[in-house]
Amino acid sequence: MIVSYDELKKLFMTILLQHGMKKEDASLLARIISDNTLDGVSSHGINRFERIVSNIDSGVIDISSSLEKTGSAGCMEIWNGHFGPGPVNAYRVMERAVDLAHEHGIGLAAISHNNHWLRGATYGLFAADAGCIGICWSNTKPNMLAWGAKESSIGNNPFVISVPQKDGAHFVFDSAMSQYSYGQLQAHRLRGEQTPFPCGFDDEGALTCDPGTVERNGRLLPMGYWKGSGLSVALDLVANVLACGLTVSDVGKMGDERGLTQVMIAIDPLKLNDSSTVESYVDRILSDLKASVSIDGRPLRYPGERLFKTRTDNRENGISVNDEIYSGVLNLLG
Amino acid sequence: MIVSYDELKKLFMTILLQHGMKKEDASLLARIISDNTLDGVSSHGINRFERIVSNIDSGVIDISSSLEKTGSAGCMEIWNGHFGPGPVNAYRVMERAVDLAHEHGIGLAAISHNNHWLRGATYGLFAADAGCIGICWSNTKPNMLAWGAKESSIGNNPFVISVPQKDGAHFVFDSAMSQYSYGQLQAHRLRGEQTPFPCGFDDEGALTCDPGTVERNGRLLPMGYWKGSGLSVALDLVANVLACGLTVSDVGKMGDERGLTQVMIAIDPLKLNDSSTVESYVDRILSDLKASVSIDGRPLRYPGERLFKTRTDNRENGISVNDEIYSGVLNLLG
Repeated sequence: MIVSYDELKKLFMTILLQHGMKKEDASLLARIISDNTLDGVSSHGINRFERIVSNIDSGVIDISSSLEKTGSAGCMEIWNGHFGPGPVNAYRVMERAVDLAHEHGIGLAAISHNNHWLRGATYGLFAADAGCIGICWSNTKPNMLAWGAKESSIGNNPFVISVPQKDGAHFVFDSAMSQYSYGQLQAHRLRGEQTPFPCGFDDEGALTCDPGTVERNGRLLPMGYWKGSGLSVALDLVANVLACGLTVSDVGKMGDERGLTQVMIAIDPLKLNDSSTVESYVDRILSDLKASVSIDGRPLRYPGERLFKTRTDNRENGISVNDEIYSGVLNLLG
Repeated sequence: MIVSYDELKKLFMTILLQHGMKKEDASLLARIISDNTLDGVSSHGINRFERIVSNIDSGVIDISSSLEKTGSAGCMEIWNGHFGPGPVNAYRVMERAVDLAHEHGIGLAAISHNNHWLRGATYGLFAADAGCIGICWSNTKPNMLAWGAKESSIGNNPFVISVPQKDGAHFVFDSAMSQYSYGQLQAHRLRGEQTPFPCGFDDEGALTCDPGTVERNGRLLPMGYWKGSGLSVALDLVANVLACGLTVSDVGKMGDERGLTQVMIAIDPLKLNDSSTVESYVDRILSDLKASVSIDGRPLRYPGERLFKTRTDNRENGISVNDEIYSGVLNLLG
């Protein structure tokens, strides 16, 4: 069915308040989940809402906790999320990074003991809306093969780089370190399809495109083989030598995937260059990319281009949501 | 043949001075090229020396130029390399990033119009030796497919993340955005081997492991398919909205691969945490990685581990260099 953005946000807000969330937190979380749905990323929007509410009820998400600053030096701050609502904490920490960037040129705010941030692009887009380059990442539970390993021992640690572009059509690269996410594996399996490129290893150690095999044996392939494996470890290292939180391996011992460590970096290019210069560089690099000769006639797109179009369309025409999932959300209303 | 580190460095230094390089620059460049060779990366060490000297003689590398600071704000500085010796400029700019990090927590120094930096790990290792996390990258000429494109239009922009570890056995992830470099393709072809994983597309648009095909048609595969393609564009964007240098596309119009844009970021974790805490996190994450069950019995290694061993071995036993290449270098002596 088709729902409007405002309708959706109001619905989420009402339910979150009924489940005891503080008003400011509920308002921000409802907005983030609505924005993700608006952007066409329901998997990290409305489709997760029931689970979030159940995590609030069970205490996995501690809605009574408050974000706490535990350290700072120059343009860096360290925060502890105390297992509060992940996207709310992540957003506020990126706000701090942006404020620090507006002051110092760069700002870094890292957070330990946070819950899942839902979708990394949320924080990259926030930085870009504030005129900043955003670089951010989160660790995860062990869910991916280290290169040469037999079982999952590293995280697919999503990594984001955003660059502001005029009119809000920001560049945003948002990528897990695995070639495919488990969500994508499930989607392929439900459609009865193989993945277009290998998604993991089968039980004999050969590359496979069969999503069901990898969902079962957990041998999820890093993007670029050894490259995604190395980058995944780098991200966990940097996050934890700064925030001193739970490592990927520690998170694996938590039962639920909680207590994550996340890093938000904002860089303000307008401290160095005027906005027309910055815009002209972004325009030029993205135009050059789009002018590349296509292999199959389909136009080349830059990361973030499609989501901007989806958002604009959905804002005008309403958002298409899965009937069953929408009913599930409605049923949460007290 | 086997040569000692000191012998090699003295030889490079003598030749660079004979070709007119300033003493300080020659000393630093000789050290960088020797270090790369010592680390077992001759492809970015002694094997490039003849080409560097020929680029000095032809003026592609302008040895009379000086690094110039063109902008600064807070913890950021922008430099222009004026087509001087690439590794010398890159090193000095990373020195600035480290100094800024020691002052502010983070330092960023970007450089435009530089020459090739040889090997990104050089600058990551320098930051790590100074106790900092290093994050750096360079753009390149267009040498890789954008995802969906028929011809090379983006760079394989090498990207580095280093994290200091005690005793100098630093973690250092140093990776081009292509699955394989052209140097690796050549090495495979000369050995009559296919690449273990696809290295590009053949003329019909199918993935291929044949290095000769990709050397010929230039359809070099991004690591992780669309992922390496997106990250490559992100790196060119961030570098140029800060440094306002030549984009990948601009570099492609230069004839030689020169005038590159590079970004050096240093983060000082000791501004936030004491060194034993930082060390314990690095130890723990790398130990967890190495404790992963291996698929084939071979021990898992972290990025940088092998180079540290190679360096230690070569320092003790001398460095093995290709006879023909060594003769070529000796012949440059005036």
